Amino acid sequence: MPCQAVRKTVTHLADGRELIYFDAAAGPAKDRTAYPDTRPLGKGPEPGESRFDPLLGEWVTVAGNRQERPYHPGPDVCPLCPSTQTRRSEIPAPDYEVAVFENRFPSLAGGGLAAHDSLTGPLPHRLRSGGGRCEVVCFTDDHDATFASLDEARVLLILAAWTDRTAALSALPGIEQVYVFENCGAEIGVTINHPHGQIYAFPYLTPKMSSVVEHGAHYLARTGENLHDAVLAAELASGRVVFENAEWAAFVPFAARWPYEAHLYPRRRVPDFTALDDAQRAAFPAAYLDLLRRFGRLFGADLPPAYIAAWHQAPPGAGPPGERPGVALHAEVFTLRRAPDKLKYLAGTESGMGAFMNDIPPEVAAERLRAAGA
Amino acid sequence: MPCQAVRKTVTHLADGRELIYFDAAAGPAKDRTAYPDTRPLGKGPEPGESRFDPLLGEWVTVAGNRQERPYHPGPDVCPLCPSTQTRRSEIPAPDYEVAVFENRFPSLAGGGLAAHDSLTGPLPHRLRSGGGRCEVVCFTDDHDATFASLDEARVLLILAAWTDRTAALSALPGIEQVYVFENCGAEIGVTINHPHGQIYAFPYLTPKMSSVVEHGAHYLARTGENLHDAVLAAELASGRVVFENAEWAAFVPFAARWPYEAHLYPRRRVPDFTALDDAQRAAFPAAYLDLLRRFGRLFGADLPPAYIAAWHQAPPGAGPPGERPGVALHAEVFTLRRAPDKLKYLAGTESGMGAFMNDIPPEVAAERLRAAGA
Repeated sequence: MPCQAVRKTVTHLADGRELIYFDAAAGPAKDRTAYPDTRPLGKGPEPGESRFDPLLGEWVTVAGNRQERPYHPGPDVCPLCPSTQTRRSEIPAPDYEVAVFENRFPSLAGGGLAAHDSLTGPLPHRLRSGGGRCEVVCFTDDHDATFASLDEARVLLILAAWTDRTAALSALPGIEQVYVFENCGAEIGVTINHPHGQIYAFPYLTPKMSSVVEHGAHYLARTGENLHDAVLAAELASGRVVFENAEWAAFVPFAARWPYEAHLYPRRRVPDFTALDDAQRAAFPAAYLDLLRRFGRLFGADLPPAYIAAWHQAPPGAGPPGERPGVALHAEVFTLRRAPDKLKYLAGTESGMGAFMNDIPPEVAAERLRAAGA
Repeated sequence: MPCQAVRKTVTHLADGRELIYFDAAAGPAKDRTAYPDTRPLGKGPEPGESRFDPLLGEWVTVAGNRQERPYHPGPDVCPLCPSTQTRRSEIPAPDYEVAVFENRFPSLAGGGLAAHDSLTGPLPHRLRSGGGRCEVVCFTDDHDATFASLDEARVLLILAAWTDRTAALSALPGIEQVYVFENCGAEIGVTINHPHGQIYAFPYLTPKMSSVVEHGAHYLARTGENLHDAVLAAELASGRVVFENAEWAAFVPFAARWPYEAHLYPRRRVPDFTALDDAQRAAFPAAYLDLLRRFGRLFGADLPPAYIAAWHQAPPGAGPPGERPGVALHAEVFTLRRAPDKLKYLAGTESGMGAFMNDIPPEVAAERLRAAGA
């Protein structure tokens, strides 16, 4: 199923937020516009604001509107389940495949913003009002599923949705990074169990991406080589490879921060989801499902999954195409569990100084993730 | 009580680790060497190793020896309580005031290391074996106390211990940062309830300190001013001051990352604990206790405290004194609680991209911390 074999239906919720249905073209056609949102919602999300920390050179987003967001709602009030006659959720249709909507309680809102035009104040107090967008990606209408339990056709549809949203959000003015991620598990603060991920379109470069861009540029200037290519080649030759197929490979990185952490790369570097070719797309579901299922088996099947999946994509529109930073699309998947009954906490060294202390040697983590294969 | 009015007794534990008693000179003299450690401990800590992440340009420490460390030991097996006839802890004496010892399960070990002499491997795989030191600082022999419950004389003694250790650890070869911190509360992963803090002597600059040094240097080159001085002046003129006395001031920073976060600075900039003068020392206990007690009262006195206190100190020995980075000694104190029953989790945006989303506007946090005064 190539990317284009998808039906995309754009609708709007009662407060004006976009809701987009993605359906596999292979299935029966359904009219997704037949179910308007009739809730009395009031107006849409307030823009937050981003503030610059001059000591660390990083933006922090302040979003005072989010304290009232749902906190562990039960399945009878799940905002991501399809609507019924008696219970109206964020998704008016009675069923769906993949649905994407603008977050009702966003950290970032206001959409596009001409770059830097609302910076106010001299150092040390730079402020940016609004800008950016937060979307929720519902992977399935089955409240009790997990990403790892989905079939390959559904994963291909999710990939099509990620691709579509990356293209659309990258095109908004002033967006400097499109970040696709999934938080899975109550242990990492997930407040809604329904399987879903998120997309943040940032009006600034996040601290990590900023570092990656900077170090990649230094490496290129010094060696003439792309840093991601050098890292991938070295990792594939290491003993830390977890899984590989013809198009994708996953490994535990040399300097892993988390007890169990794996990075999944397409073998041929692409900047973002929109640049994947058909062969890479076709081989993606098996690779990603394999990796997530290994994480699920690490501590025994009876434990609920607990991981973060973070997709790195090259910043859009940073100069002409030839000068775009050579950041490679890849996923970093990691779990905060270090044993069945023990969590990795981010305490004084990590939260206070950004210095990670990892108790599981990456070579041991790779061995355990390899052993957790089907 | 000036810094020197302290009795310091250096002893060694059965496996060779140092144990140092700090007693107020005002009290009755006690012979701390009268209680040798008779436990059959075997040899001391194994050095871990530090690995360089070329994409982020950061060191990560791998310490595979730490998985077996005590996990929530009960009071009858607390390793930080004084020893008794029937129960031998890390501290052989039957009582103590402040005691500092080398961590038995350290992330960093091996002590000093000639700078950079054990870097091996080309990019992307740089490895540093060993180096550094982790110390535990026991604030009191009372298992059920908290830092905020201590009296001013004890806080002055703790300050003397921090000062002594900063001087000693800074003098080890190859140490690039001495980091004093306290993790308080089970919610942030504290596994031993006995009131204690830690000191990490890093053989590398931590990511945050590295950023602060870099941005401070840029600011100095551009404006001729010290960045910390500029930030402190701006913050003291803001509406976010929480507390001030003649020598110290605490404020919620403009770009706070955490729900409740305050930074405590001496009004006159000093690089580290060793440079504080007598007036600053004398005024410190009231200031620090005031701040910690406000954090304790934020969510009601019946909730156990949950905070991280992170002390920033200028890196030792970075070039001649005149060229030492202009980093200001200060504490950053923050809590992961955003409401009595809700925690701030570091999920996809923070853990995946280092981008902080703060739900509590810093001005609101400052108001609540002011209202939490005695």
